[in-house]
Amino acid sequence: MHPDELQQHLREVQELLAGARPAEDEENGDRDGGELSFALVLLAPERADALRARLDALHPADIAYILEALPLEERRYVWDLVKAERDGEILLEVSDAVRESLIETMAPHELKAAAETLDADELADLAPDLPPEVIQDVFQSLSNDEREQLRAAMSYPEDSVGALMDFDLVTVREDVTLEVVLRYLRRFDELPDHTDKLFVIDREERLMGILTLETLLISDPEKQVSEVMRREPKISFSPDDDAGDATQAFERYDLVSAPVVDRGNKVIGRLTVGDVVDFIREESEAEILSHAGLREEEDVFASVWDSVKNRWAWLAINLITAFVASRVIGAFEGSIEKLVALAALMPIVAGIGGNSGNQTITMIVRAIAVGQVEESAMKRLLKKELGVALCNGVIWGGILGALAWQLYGSVSLGLVMTAAMTLNLLLAACAGVLIPIMRQRLGADPAIGGSVMITALTDSGGFFIFLGLATLFLL
Amino acid sequence: MHPDELQQHLREVQELLAGARPAEDEENGDRDGGELSFALVLLAPERADALRARLDALHPADIAYILEALPLEERRYVWDLVKAERDGEILLEVSDAVRESLIETMAPHELKAAAETLDADELADLAPDLPPEVIQDVFQSLSNDEREQLRAAMSYPEDSVGALMDFDLVTVREDVTLEVVLRYLRRFDELPDHTDKLFVIDREERLMGILTLETLLISDPEKQVSEVMRREPKISFSPDDDAGDATQAFERYDLVSAPVVDRGNKVIGRLTVGDVVDFIREESEAEILSHAGLREEEDVFASVWDSVKNRWAWLAINLITAFVASRVIGAFEGSIEKLVALAALMPIVAGIGGNSGNQTITMIVRAIAVGQVEESAMKRLLKKELGVALCNGVIWGGILGALAWQLYGSVSLGLVMTAAMTLNLLLAACAGVLIPIMRQRLGADPAIGGSVMITALTDSGGFFIFLGLATLFLL
Repeated sequence: MHPDELQQHLREVQELLAGARPAEDEENGDRDGGELSFALVLLAPERADALRARLDALHPADIAYILEALPLEERRYVWDLVKAERDGEILLEVSDAVRESLIETMAPHELKAAAETLDADELADLAPDLPPEVIQDVFQSLSNDEREQLRAAMSYPEDSVGALMDFDLVTVREDVTLEVVLRYLRRFDELPDHTDKLFVIDREERLMGILTLETLLISDPEKQVSEVMRREPKISFSPDDDAGDATQAFERYDLVSAPVVDRGNKVIGRLTVGDVVDFIREESEAEILSHAGLREEEDVFASVWDSVKNRWAWLAINLITAFVASRVIGAFEGSIEKLVALAALMPIVAGIGGNSGNQTITMIVRAIAVGQVEESAMKRLLKKELGVALCNGVIWGGILGALAWQLYGSVSLGLVMTAAMTLNLLLAACAGVLIPIMRQRLGADPAIGGSVMITALTDSGGFFIFLGLATLFLL
Repeated sequence: MHPDELQQHLREVQELLAGARPAEDEENGDRDGGELSFALVLLAPERADALRARLDALHPADIAYILEALPLEERRYVWDLVKAERDGEILLEVSDAVRESLIETMAPHELKAAAETLDADELADLAPDLPPEVIQDVFQSLSNDEREQLRAAMSYPEDSVGALMDFDLVTVREDVTLEVVLRYLRRFDELPDHTDKLFVIDREERLMGILTLETLLISDPEKQVSEVMRREPKISFSPDDDAGDATQAFERYDLVSAPVVDRGNKVIGRLTVGDVVDFIREESEAEILSHAGLREEEDVFASVWDSVKNRWAWLAINLITAFVASRVIGAFEGSIEKLVALAALMPIVAGIGGNSGNQTITMIVRAIAVGQVEESAMKRLLKKELGVALCNGVIWGGILGALAWQLYGSVSLGLVMTAAMTLNLLLAACAGVLIPIMRQRLGADPAIGGSVMITALTDSGGFFIFLGLATLFLL
């Protein structure tokens, strides 16, 4: 469906639900959850039928989209109207936060029924959100093969290829003709999603090469698979590979699917661009959210308390660093008492350091992520960033120094301002290069928390440098 | 190639280049660009040959990766070794900043030769970076069809489907059998990248349906295209569609390719998951960079001056807002002189407001981006965020108020601290909800600049609230 149509569907669903809502702009329109659920239960049967019919016609991903856009009570009402056999697919599509809100409303037998409609790799994605007893029940109902697959899929760490792969393999032997392959494919009712190539394996299921559907279609059917298959370059992954590296390979080589092999080169699974796109999206969301200290994507309609819990850690850390900075200022209270202009000027020194440091660290983290920063480049990068900091210090520090001079009529105050800004920018540049590189060398993710650390440093450092210089030279 | 192998290649290239480098840890190892280029030109011929052979064996995307990871002089040296006929492909793969550094080194006739190896849609991507006279030359050398395509591709705005689409269509008629389609495909030497479906068109080239390769392969070859093709749901885009919406549709329906049609439903191009993946990556990079006020991906090896230019606008804006905040403090210098503790405590009040406001705005911007925020939800979101702010104000404001009381032995100072933090958090919540919603209503991108605006507001606002309350109640 075209995106505009989807928006249209959302609006129509909202209109159908609106019949059940107390009018919002009534004087005492302050509705609470209980009242609303009550109204929704009483939604006229013909409206409920219209809504159900509309939902049945939609793709699971579209239903997921609509569920995410609805406030809690309405979301639950709509969720109840969805056909039970589609529950599993839809749970896979919604965001984690919304999934939780839907699973809460379901009885164990409903969850089990929903889970049983899924493949092993999909089940592995859903499992962490399911109650343990439901997982056990589902596990019992699987075939041996599926159990093995589920166990495998759940055993790999979250950001590994193993956690992303599926088990929908179409494999062929190399000693048959394309005609035989074509006949073999005609026996399928459908091919797995994203099948753009078949994996050519030997008797021990080891990967011998790749037969693309393209090759299959444009080649003479009389030819043997071994004649037309591609042996090199053979892009395959191990389940232990980093998922981020694998997604970069997908981007670089424009892949649609790729085999996953074990140590013995035996084909055990498949990675598809669909999973890769989801991974890229989730990673970048997580990175953007982490900049604001949000631990996970938050359901915009989550309760106040859930939101407070999602956000508290970051605020706590920031308060601690702010408190430290405040104590640095406290140490110079005598100086501020003598020259109160310092109090007004000090946040400028701290602020510019934080901004500039965040620019540096963002650059370096990205360069590390794509593998551009080697040991050998570090000295060079540090020198460059110090150069940038010096430039900015002279330019912006000079301007602000001149302004301080104008405002407070003291040349020496202006000079201290310029010097402090330059020094704090140099501090920010050092920290911006060194923090992510040190974190990487220690095996930590260079992206996480860097912004907090650098802001803490440039705040406390900025106050210390400025107030310290002022105490030395002005008082 | 597997990501680990690529890293290995990069290291080997760096080792081959290292022979030409003056040893880095010599006492006077401070080398400048001129000296180094000289050394590189003198790279022993057998080493240069080894390097060239290695490069020839690599995928263009891998060469692009290696070029991006090399400092300027070495990058240029390697670039000269690459076979000229691969220049075009590689220029498409490197980041914008690195592309600029490569194009600078090329003569117009080299650029023309590189450009002529590309398709119209690829040329359109490269064109903005090429000198006008090169584009004119290339344009002259194109066929009429290609000129039309190039003109079309360049006429669409950057974030539209038209700018992403390619023109590699494989179309069939509905009144032929699959056998005929299979025979037709066998006449191709290769199919366009990412061909997972053929577009079924009528005599006027209007889109009638979709024939997936899967259907083609699993169906009886005697059947007519019209019998097996999919008519609905027919996911197609218009070149004027927003590229972001289209990428969401690709994610939602796990598409590999989709037709682009004009107003008359005539097929004019094709969107593929390869372009979509690139777009998602670029968008998220841009968003992450914009958080630190970086205008574009910066070449980590760019010159100091290029970096200063890339970063100055953000620093300037932040200095202006910091200056305004400083003037707010300036207005209360009398109060600070009387009670110097205010100077030490005020950055805490401002800081927590900024952090909390950024959490809110990040949430709301993301909700708007996926279409979750409708007019009707605004009041509800505002109420929720105010609730979260009140919670945080009471909890964190209470703790900090108690600390202030401990430190300075004044209950009323502690109470003012708590009240100021709560009020600033409420201000941050309001601004965090309203700024992005207002920007969207005014037709601006809700994501851009929100963080700067909210920090400016909570800084100046925080100082004003805290110092104002203190002046009213403490002095």
